[in-house]
Amino acid sequence: MGGVPLAVSFDDVRAAAARIEGLVHRTPVVTCAALDALAGARLFFKCEQLQRVGAFKFRGASHALSRLSPEQRAAGVLTHSSGNHAQALARAARDAGLSAQIVMPANSSPVKLRAVQEYGAQITLCEPTLAAREQAAAAVQARTGATFVHPYDDAHVIAGQGTAALELLSQAGPLDALVVPVGGGGLAAGSCLAVQGLSPGTRVILAEPAGADDAARSFAAGRRLAPDAPRTLADGLLTGLGELTWPILSAHAERVITVSDAQIIGAMRSLWERAKLLVEPSAATVLAAILNDPTRCLAGCERVGLILSGGNVDLDRLPFAAEGETRRG
Amino acid sequence: MGGVPLAVSFDDVRAAAARIEGLVHRTPVVTCAALDALAGARLFFKCEQLQRVGAFKFRGASHALSRLSPEQRAAGVLTHSSGNHAQALARAARDAGLSAQIVMPANSSPVKLRAVQEYGAQITLCEPTLAAREQAAAAVQARTGATFVHPYDDAHVIAGQGTAALELLSQAGPLDALVVPVGGGGLAAGSCLAVQGLSPGTRVILAEPAGADDAARSFAAGRRLAPDAPRTLADGLLTGLGELTWPILSAHAERVITVSDAQIIGAMRSLWERAKLLVEPSAATVLAAILNDPTRCLAGCERVGLILSGGNVDLDRLPFAAEGETRRG
Repeated sequence: MGGVPLAVSFDDVRAAAARIEGLVHRTPVVTCAALDALAGARLFFKCEQLQRVGAFKFRGASHALSRLSPEQRAAGVLTHSSGNHAQALARAARDAGLSAQIVMPANSSPVKLRAVQEYGAQITLCEPTLAAREQAAAAVQARTGATFVHPYDDAHVIAGQGTAALELLSQAGPLDALVVPVGGGGLAAGSCLAVQGLSPGTRVILAEPAGADDAARSFAAGRRLAPDAPRTLADGLLTGLGELTWPILSAHAERVITVSDAQIIGAMRSLWERAKLLVEPSAATVLAAILNDPTRCLAGCERVGLILSGGNVDLDRLPFAAEGETRRG
Repeated sequence: MGGVPLAVSFDDVRAAAARIEGLVHRTPVVTCAALDALAGARLFFKCEQLQRVGAFKFRGASHALSRLSPEQRAAGVLTHSSGNHAQALARAARDAGLSAQIVMPANSSPVKLRAVQEYGAQITLCEPTLAAREQAAAAVQARTGATFVHPYDDAHVIAGQGTAALELLSQAGPLDALVVPVGGGGLAAGSCLAVQGLSPGTRVILAEPAGADDAARSFAAGRRLAPDAPRTLADGLLTGLGELTWPILSAHAERVITVSDAQIIGAMRSLWERAKLLVEPSAATVLAAILNDPTRCLAGCERVGLILSGGNVDLDRLPFAAEGETRRG
């Protein structure tokens, strides 16, 4: 850690919150006694599945757009993504009156393609490899002059994502710990900065699928390691840590808890059945981490915040095994 | 209408809110641009699926218990119900340190039986007829002296249910109309009183399944009619209007919109997919009414409140037909 300057600060998160106020939902914080009983702590769920486009990604995209110069606005924005960031950028651009170009793999689900299209973005299809995505994005950029907005390794995006934790801390009151999912690390890094500025005594714990455990391995090695053939149902968390996000996480997050896909599905079912919170697998990692941590590092914590990252699931392909249980505590 | 004194007043609702503050959740109000676009109005969803036990019923039960005398508290409470009221009374009694006796039909789902049992209530099984339920309840009452708490035709229960609309009106700002589901009429009657007191210009519209349309027929006839072999997926709305609820509804509600089960399922799917709101069929009737009203009585309304009554569904038996669509506007 030491003296390396970080790309984003708490002041950046606070400034982002002021810039995107009114553009993004101030999402509710929900509690559920039945889940508290399971966890042995009071849990505060920050409901980013109720954010616009159903995911926290709308915060970072909105903030990045708010920082464009008039010249940049005229040329529009660009990204490559098959997930929530694509929808978030397309929708935020439409709201801001900008054009958006989205490079998407040709094997993206028709549902996601249609969603991006309905938000008025122009889609360029490419082969489903990172190289093909980057090449296609570069070609679109050369042609249009659009500004590329990275899904997580961008200072404005990180600052925007941090506003979710900023709100949670003011909504829930003092927290002993905050559990955040980690994929590329934009939400996690922004959350670290919010905590550092508002509540430095709150421990930040990262939740990660065991099938995409580059953050856990990076923490163990003390340096940023790349994903190694990641595979998990939590498809929002497949990406590796970024150049900007890793230094923030390594400086401020306490540790990473990895969870199996079966544990993620179990936690997701509990969130749906007990708390009536319709979240996607990536979001359920945070509850899975609390309920299944072999180190019991959160034992003794009385008040724990959890950021539920999103709720974009295919209702025709739910992962639940058949077993009945349908109420809320 | 005219001079008939009603069993409950706005002051009763306001007093109930003060008594149950801290016992019940102040549930969030959620908006969703995609559903606004479908409806052609700004919709404000009061999320009672996020209430304790997953339904507004917890409000009325908590309020009824708060009104018991010390002697009544010592003898405990009693109801017959196979639905959300059973869970609500069991849970509220546990919270208040009272004993609860619940008469349930022997063919109740194991999930619901287990839920009531987990809340510590004593269950008496009976045949699945109203006569058998009333007989069993009378026997329990004779033996224990427990106070019977009716699921809707009880002044304290009605006043308690009205606190949901009371909160919504203060959370959402001015509303042109409020749409509420109607079964026995406890929630609907309480909502009428809250609107009358806080915002008399707001129109109150009732939403009812076509397969259980006793409220629509009662409004047409100008007198309370009984259900006629009711049959609908919205199992929370099978009951007929009460002696106390009907006069309030006929005095204050504008009309009833009936919706088919197919329309209810479509609205439920939209609430899950677009708004990420996990609600049960009975709750989805309110959106179904707005989207499918043949009279278009809400055309021109700019701001419409909807009370989502609950979220207790069996995840292993979802009613959705296969058709994909998975995002939020």
